Amino acid sequence: MSNTKRAYNFNPGPGPLPLEVLEQAQAEMLDFKGTGMSVMEISHRSKEFEAVIQTAEADLRELLGIPANYKIMFLQGGATLQFTMLPMNLRATGSADYIVTGTWSKTAIKEAQKLGAARAAANTESEGFKGYPEKLDLDPKAAYLHFTSNETIHGVEYFSEPVPPAGVPLICDTSSDFISRPVDISKYAMLYAGAQKNAGPSGVTVVIIRDDMIERVPANLPVMLDYKTLAASGSLHNTPPSFAIYMVGLVFQWAKKQGGLAAIEKVNRVKADMIYKTIDESGGFYRGHAKPEARSLMNIPFRLPSEELEDAFAKEAKKNNLIGLKGHRSVGGMRASVYNAVTVEGAGELVKFMKDFQQKNG
Amino acid sequence: MSNTKRAYNFNPGPGPLPLEVLEQAQAEMLDFKGTGMSVMEISHRSKEFEAVIQTAEADLRELLGIPANYKIMFLQGGATLQFTMLPMNLRATGSADYIVTGTWSKTAIKEAQKLGAARAAANTESEGFKGYPEKLDLDPKAAYLHFTSNETIHGVEYFSEPVPPAGVPLICDTSSDFISRPVDISKYAMLYAGAQKNAGPSGVTVVIIRDDMIERVPANLPVMLDYKTLAASGSLHNTPPSFAIYMVGLVFQWAKKQGGLAAIEKVNRVKADMIYKTIDESGGFYRGHAKPEARSLMNIPFRLPSEELEDAFAKEAKKNNLIGLKGHRSVGGMRASVYNAVTVEGAGELVKFMKDFQQKNG
Repeated sequence: MSNTKRAYNFNPGPGPLPLEVLEQAQAEMLDFKGTGMSVMEISHRSKEFEAVIQTAEADLRELLGIPANYKIMFLQGGATLQFTMLPMNLRATGSADYIVTGTWSKTAIKEAQKLGAARAAANTESEGFKGYPEKLDLDPKAAYLHFTSNETIHGVEYFSEPVPPAGVPLICDTSSDFISRPVDISKYAMLYAGAQKNAGPSGVTVVIIRDDMIERVPANLPVMLDYKTLAASGSLHNTPPSFAIYMVGLVFQWAKKQGGLAAIEKVNRVKADMIYKTIDESGGFYRGHAKPEARSLMNIPFRLPSEELEDAFAKEAKKNNLIGLKGHRSVGGMRASVYNAVTVEGAGELVKFMKDFQQKNG
Repeated sequence: MSNTKRAYNFNPGPGPLPLEVLEQAQAEMLDFKGTGMSVMEISHRSKEFEAVIQTAEADLRELLGIPANYKIMFLQGGATLQFTMLPMNLRATGSADYIVTGTWSKTAIKEAQKLGAARAAANTESEGFKGYPEKLDLDPKAAYLHFTSNETIHGVEYFSEPVPPAGVPLICDTSSDFISRPVDISKYAMLYAGAQKNAGPSGVTVVIIRDDMIERVPANLPVMLDYKTLAASGSLHNTPPSFAIYMVGLVFQWAKKQGGLAAIEKVNRVKADMIYKTIDESGGFYRGHAKPEARSLMNIPFRLPSEELEDAFAKEAKKNNLIGLKGHRSVGGMRASVYNAVTVEGAGELVKFMKDFQQKNG
């Protein structure tokens, strides 16, 4: 066992996991619940693993208030594979609408367009992906309306859902704000999220889908791309990513212990507010990217007066055990990702460092 | 830390991992190489994770003698997603040949037929999937010839490759005998394997593909299904299943420490021989499934005189800490999977139990 201090981890994903989740995984590594095996070594058809996946599902239903007429799937391939599976399963021969507010929704529509018709109901790229579209040009016959609730790279987050035309299902890529706050699931036909931000390690993608959507799935899709087959098998059509599902389940249990998503949102607001306040009170030394109303609670990109200062910031931050703060190359500068497992203490360390750095370099 | 005795694990997959691999993962769980983070918490773009994936690749190249003109990819979705990606990427508008020798090759051709033309060059189902086809009806213009080197359910393993017509690439699903013995990679255009038998936990699939095959990939495939994109990005087009890749890398290091694949094959032969000998010397109490020349070193299905005895065998075995011996429902009876991480001691315990059980019930 090492004595290295735990890093203050601001990675955009994979990101930090709650310490007690890692400690439990460590303690159970050689012997999962008296089996004499690791959870990685047991059959995915065993009663022990069935309990893992069923508990994970039940806990997620409780956390997000997911009604019984929605299925939950634990899949592979990340949100990026969902960019393909979604239109393949739910668009049929129609057209789908996409709200483009950042790199991820832009990628989602691009993948959808490879396989059929998809149109941008709005696109804020010309404004630098800084906020919500002023208006939506909605197709009343669209197979669905897709949006990205949190743009990880641009730090733009929706706090209330865009409203589709009557009868058009709303579908959401919630990868980077999944389980960070309560959501009214009944507004959605489907949500999906790569786990590696708030919910667990990489290698598993959670899909929550309403039963009537599954009825749309065309016949004869490849089995691993077929929501109907995958939902019917309870994510066990073939061998699932067992360890990642186990870890996601531990994170759901941790989230319940924190008091659920309303309590988690409060902490997330405290952390984000601390950092945005530091930016706003820096007199222009730190400049945020997103418009104030669209500021993400999860990913906070910001710039400094020069690239030299940005490089120096990243290097000195690392020396202070503040990790993962370099921004995405498409936005530049810095980005602080403050997912659920980032503590208020960690956010405080970052704020302290930001103030110190400005004092020395401002 | 628990004191439960490690199980003798004969699961067909996910299967046992080497104890020292699990111990290393356990020791590094809270602090991967002095980062103050778990390997699950670090960025897949960090130099630390790049070292993980590059070392895993280099070690696999060394173990299997993979020439420089092959790419190695660590993908998601299991071998089952490869059943779709393979024809999507490498068949173009032609037809592909499949040798059907068990459940897995039967599933592979079925998936290929959903997307285009695939024909069975042979099919041993009418003989109960017990051995190699007597002859192959090969298409000299096939896009490729596919076979399954080890049928996990039927226990039929190829020890020398089927020979395709001149110019037809040979492609192999080697999921359940991957890194169990040396293979002449130069005979193959592509091999793929779900990791969860010999190579690691579930959630990662290794694909080894010759460069000229990648040239065949059609334009505009969905990115997560596109060998060209995935190979060019070094498996890092999107967030990879980091922890599973890390574990596979530890298993490759373990395999090297065992003396490489020739040494591992020797041990695997010792273990399988012990069990087959017990079957053969049981006077018909135990009956193997596969024909002697096709007997798998990895999966050994066998029957007992009655289903009642089979149920009793499974139950008593479990009491003796021998886990995972129930056969697949399609073959019935028992199955002992003796992957690389099953020790000679473990195989010995099984043999002792089999003899005892026969003495009491024969």
